Amino acid sequence: MGIVVQKYGGSSVADAAGVKRVAQRIIATKKAGHDVVVVVSAMGDTTDELIDLANEVTPLPPARELDMLLTAGERISMAVLAMAIQSLGFDARSFTGSQAGVITDAEHGRAKIIDVTPGRIQAAIGEGAIAIVAGFQGVSQTTKDITTLGRGGSDTTAVALAVALQADVCEIYSDVDGIFTADPRIEPRARKVPRISYEETLEMAAQGAKILHLRCVEYARRYDMPIHVRSSFSDKEGTWVVKAEDVNKDGNMEAAIITGVAHDRSQAKITVVGVPDKVGEAAAIFRAVAEAQTNIDMIVQNVSAAATGRTDISFTLPRAEGQAAMAALSKLQGEVGYERLQYDDSVGKVSVVGAGMSTAPGITATFFAALADAGVNIEMISTSEIRVSVVVAESQVEAAVNAAHAAYNLGSDEIEAVVYGGTGR
Amino acid sequence: MGIVVQKYGGSSVADAAGVKRVAQRIIATKKAGHDVVVVVSAMGDTTDELIDLANEVTPLPPARELDMLLTAGERISMAVLAMAIQSLGFDARSFTGSQAGVITDAEHGRAKIIDVTPGRIQAAIGEGAIAIVAGFQGVSQTTKDITTLGRGGSDTTAVALAVALQADVCEIYSDVDGIFTADPRIEPRARKVPRISYEETLEMAAQGAKILHLRCVEYARRYDMPIHVRSSFSDKEGTWVVKAEDVNKDGNMEAAIITGVAHDRSQAKITVVGVPDKVGEAAAIFRAVAEAQTNIDMIVQNVSAAATGRTDISFTLPRAEGQAAMAALSKLQGEVGYERLQYDDSVGKVSVVGAGMSTAPGITATFFAALADAGVNIEMISTSEIRVSVVVAESQVEAAVNAAHAAYNLGSDEIEAVVYGGTGR
Repeated sequence: MGIVVQKYGGSSVADAAGVKRVAQRIIATKKAGHDVVVVVSAMGDTTDELIDLANEVTPLPPARELDMLLTAGERISMAVLAMAIQSLGFDARSFTGSQAGVITDAEHGRAKIIDVTPGRIQAAIGEGAIAIVAGFQGVSQTTKDITTLGRGGSDTTAVALAVALQADVCEIYSDVDGIFTADPRIEPRARKVPRISYEETLEMAAQGAKILHLRCVEYARRYDMPIHVRSSFSDKEGTWVVKAEDVNKDGNMEAAIITGVAHDRSQAKITVVGVPDKVGEAAAIFRAVAEAQTNIDMIVQNVSAAATGRTDISFTLPRAEGQAAMAALSKLQGEVGYERLQYDDSVGKVSVVGAGMSTAPGITATFFAALADAGVNIEMISTSEIRVSVVVAESQVEAAVNAAHAAYNLGSDEIEAVVYGGTGR
Repeated sequence: MGIVVQKYGGSSVADAAGVKRVAQRIIATKKAGHDVVVVVSAMGDTTDELIDLANEVTPLPPARELDMLLTAGERISMAVLAMAIQSLGFDARSFTGSQAGVITDAEHGRAKIIDVTPGRIQAAIGEGAIAIVAGFQGVSQTTKDITTLGRGGSDTTAVALAVALQADVCEIYSDVDGIFTADPRIEPRARKVPRISYEETLEMAAQGAKILHLRCVEYARRYDMPIHVRSSFSDKEGTWVVKAEDVNKDGNMEAAIITGVAHDRSQAKITVVGVPDKVGEAAAIFRAVAEAQTNIDMIVQNVSAAATGRTDISFTLPRAEGQAAMAALSKLQGEVGYERLQYDDSVGKVSVVGAGMSTAPGITATFFAALADAGVNIEMISTSEIRVSVVVAESQVEAAVNAAHAAYNLGSDEIEAVVYGGTGR
């Protein structure tokens, strides 16, 4: 049997009882004959508490020292987890990111993995031990300083280690049973998806589904490492994230055209009203917004009204970046000569995602018809090869999700009792 | 100006306010023109809390993992301290024991420093930065695993770094103003000693004065590194621990014959009554006690009573080890044929220490006369070149300290308001 890499999030190891439960699970995998390498996040709220401590000392903690501070969190959880496994009679050894050979660039707080040299991990599992590795952290190749990988870092650590160790699978554990056709908190008939492609997972994640972080899925796709998303609270099979041609390899089921419905309530919409319809105006607007460090998602430009020679440009962006973008645009009024700005943070985005979409006609029509029947007004539209997204009023997000879910027959007959949450970092 | 190494204990950096105060102090030293290297312990009760967490998972945490866990404590304090210094406009960088080049053997929980290669520290201070180093920890030369140095570890880290960096001085900060002629909690006239030799400090520490740990003083003596023991809560000069010939180098004061009075309430006394006065009986007794891993301090054997051919053997040992020693001795009754065992944990030890003692006659007589005048009964006596110790009833420890302090005129005219405590780890 081969190597299994398992990643446990902070909610799975929130306290001593959780650590012991996870230890049992790890041992069960070891007993099944696998070599086991475990990546663990900081316990519960440890990271937030460490950030609070830093902020008690200074409002702007320097990035190098913040990384040094935060990596204490995984150091604690990995050591305690190794202790719990040893107390059950199995050999276990913890390793920092640096000791595990997670080599990064020097971008503190958002370092990128540039190499993984897991010699000590291979030696440990070669001697029959279970290796416990700190997620979220590495060491800079150039400065030799400790770095952190930013959001989704522990998932990425797990996938990168799985690739470097040529593992059979990377299992990502959280408090959710897998990836669902929609968020079960607002769609009671949401169904767990048994298999999904990397590409669909990326679209779902990018469109607001809090499943896996984009980085780790991109890493897994690049090296074709299967990810098994599952719950640390049950023994049920979760969702396998695999390459597109393997999604239906069981052969006993028709490929679903639509895999799921994602939604995102974290966005805001800015409309620049009355922009003179001249070459270069849109470029000036988006250059200003980019300089304010905002990440634009959807953009819509109306056809120019012949009578006025003016048009409206709308775009969506994360709410947290809304004020900075508005400030940047305000400064531009004299130069561009637009009439006014509108800011709306009562919007939501609903997306249908499915790899079968590109070859199935009528998908978009079905979606829009379902929304119309539910009385949902579409404010903006954007599409990709395997996705259609709409911006609607935030108050209509739930109705839109329910309508789309029903329109594509995504629901199961029985309602599964699950809590749908994030996977931590 | 040269390099100053400063060590701050956990009580000095117990919270954000403490960290900021210490940061100010460090910057003052930097502004005075020194290169500053700081060794810091874990904040407040962090270490105890981490031990509690380990014990929630397993009653006997494996030593390698316990070291990994506990080193998270200094990682937190050093990063936060570096942040506080940077927020005040000075460059500061934190380093783990491993990064600072603290190389140890592989004895987890009580590792010994075998080399210090502070290349990164030298580079940091060469660039004008203040270097913050995690105390208490290092990395094993053979296994590359993280180790801790055990009790007194941070003090030892500071002295070892000071030696490796050829610093001018190693300053050890705590919540005490320095080394006193006696514990001010029981001797209100106790006076801070301005200078004391390594040898006297070792005797004071070994006899129960909670000043500096033996290890760090031994290390400083071996390499002749001056230690300045002082309070992080005041700017007062503390006590300089230096080589004997430098104690009175100011030349303007007569050498004190007695430097201080130490006491120790942590010991117990065991008496083996009615031991047959034959060759090898004492050896059998102390071999059994040694096998029980107990550390014997004083030993007294009475002259054999001619009528019975039997004698009594008494010895003192740490109370925590008393039950193990009693159990080991009980098993020996058949072999040795002693009459019975007595166990007394209501004893205390009082010692007078002074380098001038060896050349000044009558010191012991003065001590014993003072004790007699105070009504204190002496149970056991032991002496070294620069020390006389007595075991007395625990209830008479305070009277004995006061009597000795007065007999040698150690007191100051004014009563200093200080709290006398440990220096953390």
